[in-house]
Amino acid sequence: MPTKIGFIGLGNMGGGMAPNLVKAGFEVRVFDLSAEALQRAVEAGCSAAGSAAAAVQGAECVISMLPNGAIVESLYIDAEPALLDHIGAGALVIDCSTVAAASSRRLAAEAQKRGINAIDAPVSGGVAAAAAATLAFMCGGSETACEAARPILSAMGSNVFRAGDSGAGQVAKICNNMLLAVHMIGTAEALQLGVDHGLDPAVLSDIMLKSSGCNWSLEKYNPYPGVMASVPASREYQGGFMVNLMKKDLGLALEAALRSQSYTPMGALAQSLYGLHSQAGGSDNGELDFSSIQRLFSKPSTGES
Amino acid sequence: MPTKIGFIGLGNMGGGMAPNLVKAGFEVRVFDLSAEALQRAVEAGCSAAGSAAAAVQGAECVISMLPNGAIVESLYIDAEPALLDHIGAGALVIDCSTVAAASSRRLAAEAQKRGINAIDAPVSGGVAAAAAATLAFMCGGSETACEAARPILSAMGSNVFRAGDSGAGQVAKICNNMLLAVHMIGTAEALQLGVDHGLDPAVLSDIMLKSSGCNWSLEKYNPYPGVMASVPASREYQGGFMVNLMKKDLGLALEAALRSQSYTPMGALAQSLYGLHSQAGGSDNGELDFSSIQRLFSKPSTGES
Amino acid sequence: MPTKIGFIGLGNMGGGMAPNLVKAGFEVRVFDLSAEALQRAVEAGCSAAGSAAAAVQGAECVISMLPNGAIVESLYIDAEPALLDHIGAGALVIDCSTVAAASSRRLAAEAQKRGINAIDAPVSGGVAAAAAATLAFMCGGSETACEAARPILSAMGSNVFRAGDSGAGQVAKICNNMLLAVHMIGTAEALQLGVDHGLDPAVLSDIMLKSSGCNWSLEKYNPYPGVMASVPASREYQGGFMVNLMKKDLGLALEAALRSQSYTPMGALAQSLYGLHSQAGGSDNGELDFSSIQRLFSKPSTGES
Amino acid sequence: MPTKIGFIGLGNMGGGMAPNLVKAGFEVRVFDLSAEALQRAVEAGCSAAGSAAAAVQGAECVISMLPNGAIVESLYIDAEPALLDHIGAGALVIDCSTVAAASSRRLAAEAQKRGINAIDAPVSGGVAAAAAATLAFMCGGSETACEAARPILSAMGSNVFRAGDSGAGQVAKICNNMLLAVHMIGTAEALQLGVDHGLDPAVLSDIMLKSSGCNWSLEKYNPYPGVMASVPASREYQGGFMVNLMKKDLGLALEAALRSQSYTPMGALAQSLYGLHSQAGGSDNGELDFSSIQRLFSKPSTGES
Repeated sequence: MPTKIGFIGLGNMGGGMAPNLVKAGFEVRVFDLSAEALQRAVEAGCSAAGSAAAAVQGAECVISMLPNGAIVESLYIDAEPALLDHIGAGALVIDCSTVAAASSRRLAAEAQKRGINAIDAPVSGGVAAAAAATLAFMCGGSETACEAARPILSAMGSNVFRAGDSGAGQVAKICNNMLLAVHMIGTAEALQLGVDHGLDPAVLSDIMLKSSGCNWSLEKYNPYPGVMASVPASREYQGGFMVNLMKKDLGLALEAALRSQSYTPMGALAQSLYGLHSQAGGSDNGELDFSSIQRLFSKPSTGES
Repeated sequence: MPTKIGFIGLGNMGGGMAPNLVKAGFEVRVFDLSAEALQRAVEAGCSAAGSAAAAVQGAECVISMLPNGAIVESLYIDAEPALLDHIGAGALVIDCSTVAAASSRRLAAEAQKRGINAIDAPVSGGVAAAAAATLAFMCGGSETACEAARPILSAMGSNVFRAGDSGAGQVAKICNNMLLAVHMIGTAEALQLGVDHGLDPAVLSDIMLKSSGCNWSLEKYNPYPGVMASVPASREYQGGFMVNLMKKDLGLALEAALRSQSYTPMGALAQSLYGLHSQAGGSDNGELDFSSIQRLFSKPSTGES
Repeated sequence: MPTKIGFIGLGNMGGGMAPNLVKAGFEVRVFDLSAEALQRAVEAGCSAAGSAAAAVQGAECVISMLPNGAIVESLYIDAEPALLDHIGAGALVIDCSTVAAASSRRLAAEAQKRGINAIDAPVSGGVAAAAAATLAFMCGGSETACEAARPILSAMGSNVFRAGDSGAGQVAKICNNMLLAVHMIGTAEALQLGVDHGLDPAVLSDIMLKSSGCNWSLEKYNPYPGVMASVPASREYQGGFMVNLMKKDLGLALEAALRSQSYTPMGALAQSLYGLHSQAGGSDNGELDFSSIQRLFSKPSTGES
Repeated sequence: MPTKIGFIGLGNMGGGMAPNLVKAGFEVRVFDLSAEALQRAVEAGCSAAGSAAAAVQGAECVISMLPNGAIVESLYIDAEPALLDHIGAGALVIDCSTVAAASSRRLAAEAQKRGINAIDAPVSGGVAAAAAATLAFMCGGSETACEAARPILSAMGSNVFRAGDSGAGQVAKICNNMLLAVHMIGTAEALQLGVDHGLDPAVLSDIMLKSSGCNWSLEKYNPYPGVMASVPASREYQGGFMVNLMKKDLGLALEAALRSQSYTPMGALAQSLYGLHSQAGGSDNGELDFSSIQRLFSKPSTGES
């Protein structure tokens, strides 16, 4: 098992993940453009590198958590020199960023040319799960590479899935998140419809939880204020998984559907509704939690039934 | 607890429910227009009545399971003489039909004029659940009336919920089924998108089951052929909950939303998609199971990713 | 040709229509609950009646312009005494209100029992067209009755269409307005998409006007601020045809579609979008013109292309 | 004005366009991979070249009409040698293909490096318009370049618009076609709704043509069989503008919307409906005319109203 890890990208997610590797006994050298983020990682036991190239020097495994595919492709491949040229042959690259499957495949192919195995391993679960090491990883790559990644990913999460070959992790992620968006909006609509007809949202939630309407949004993340104690809906949609991030994932899903000529009318409508929500008043420019879509449906006064 | 029950309506659902009351020790007198259905009920231990009026004569509790609100209102109220006029004061009427909340409220109000308590108690679960006494009942009526109904309904189902006052059972039912339709279609879209990008639908299902995409359709009723052994998708969508019944429930949901000026874009799109599906080739005129919506999205050949 | 007309309902529309009958030489006796509205009609040459019954007494033709079907049915049929009982046999009733086709058919049937011909004649065109006598009337009733109505309606409008038998005028009206809503939203989306990619909305409008995208919204009622001089979009969406009225018509369209099991996915989405728009910030509680739907799509800053 | 034109791509569209240049007095040298297409062009007065490079040799103006952006970019830029390297400095390139705006911009930029002006000029109008020289051209490029192109394009069409700078022609085209798809589907829904309520589709069409529902689909291209004599709907949707081509344009529109973070719920739904229609039975694998979307809404038997 590799013990020397280079870790690039210490944002909200990466900043929570890297320390969990330290706790599990790995030697972790990190890099981020933010000095502050670097400092926090050092306090958690990582060692700081002065550049991405320095962070990966001599690492048996390189992990990255970056904002989008353009940055991933630029950093690893198109920059001069490319980060891949600083990584030793035989090393394992695990890119945890959520990007298009095509970007992941390009990275894997470029890595392979240099004798490096690269897998895509986007995550499910938010900032809290990153800190608590309870993320789920959806991996795309060869069975061997994914198995090699498993003990490392297990230090940062509770589930490690292999979805298929290179890029499949990204596909699984966007399928999952598109479905999540669909049932979150469906849940918000159903709760509002019930409330508009005089039902108590908590009672209706209880009934649907034990019936065929049951879904993750209803069970773990009820969007109606006051129904569940510890979810964003009960703290004015602060924290959680931002509308803007859901928008990004829905955009990747639609892009993938366009490419494969798959038709996803509910997914496309979800993308439009999240987009309109992010532009309207109730989402704080898309910075509130994605369950705030409930606000799109709420009314000043209820109708008759 | 009432022991003499009059039971009206022995279709696919009612025909399975009445025998479970006999098994639980109730004395059940049944009526249906079909002699064959009556005969089956008699074989299961019910006694047959020659008319609806005769079935409810002297009953402490009357249960009905009828196809739609027009029939419910006609039978109980508008026929001459009205069935309500044959039911004794103090009796409990439990209407298990899925109808508009307004119909349920009218029935309750008319019953009350005659000293009769009537509740709405539409069910969740299909023909198999009716036979196995594992239905869920969503009740609308006073707490007293719903509590009085509980031991009787418990003989036919595993869950008895009180959603609120008269009509609330109907509202809960349509909210639940609208949400079910939304996540079923969302699940079908997500699975097809994954398959079109080369993923194995069983692997993708496993991943989403353990992630935030999880929902009842995925867990209990996977719409992709071959993923789950004992569901309609694996027997060419035979049996189960017919597209036409889902269409009816979605129609009731939209009607309710129009009345309360609630906006349910995903629910409305689900209603259109189920409607178009019922008209297109792949649903056998709407008689296949509702998970056959998967066929709307399937393609002759998969695209690139 | 009838010369004595009873006119009920002097709101924004009816208040503009009745004076045009006077100008054309008819003798018009009016009634409205508002004394102020009555007074304005008297100033325009109508004579005021103290009740609806008094207004129709001895009239050869009765015209009504009322807010909804519940009021129409209540006034003409269900009130005691019913207004129909005050109208002489052989008279012609022209109901210009926009109501469900079923309401129009009930009115026609009840009228016929009393030897009265009643047609539905909902209008297209707003407050300005009512005042200018340029409304379009969509009539439902026998050919004879519609022909009898033609010279009277021609005094108030520039187009009189017979759509078919009783109720057909209502159906034509909602089909037209549903289509109007669809192409208004489509136009708003297309203009915004162009603007977001750097196009001048006036140039893009010009191109589409001469191409296959051409439609009434683009030609007569451009929703993008500043493109056309004399439309609501260029006066902050004041005046015109209110979002709330479009919502009402879309509700009638969906109700009709539910009844006939017709599927109208674009119409249903238009209804949801107008509903959400009426609840969101940019429509002044639905009191702005319906072209204000453009605001739903506008962005603080434009993206790249 | 240039007189020597090189013309690449003689498919259904290009094959109709090139002869019109000859008629207008231009000297036209053509190339296509199909010997048959070349032969037809020669019969119409063009001279055949043995390669694309040969066709453009010495041309003052190069016109191309190709199936998609990948082919355009490959031919002009990425092939070795690139076609641009065979075109003389100072020449004008007019690409009439419908491609992403980004492809057009790349072509323009690469051309400029070689002293060549390239504009995008996608067309509106189908095969018949190409043959009849009544196409509309939507141009993107500098005012000078677009003015230089005008007399040439005028030989092949009746309208030449400048939408803006490079790529703007493509944007105008997809905005227009997205709007066209939206009002075509809206028209089909409205006509079916009317028919399902007993209206004659020709009568309803007449009414809406003179009312606010009016649009190009209704006026020039009625999708209901039998209403208009000379449109695809009246010859079982043969000929016209194929479903598959509309799908391609809607795909480009959605891709553009994703890029600019514009939200087009009606456009996205239109894309899904055309996609599902192309997969279902009624479109002959997408080869029927796009007004065949009417079939998606038609029913075996009409409902009540």
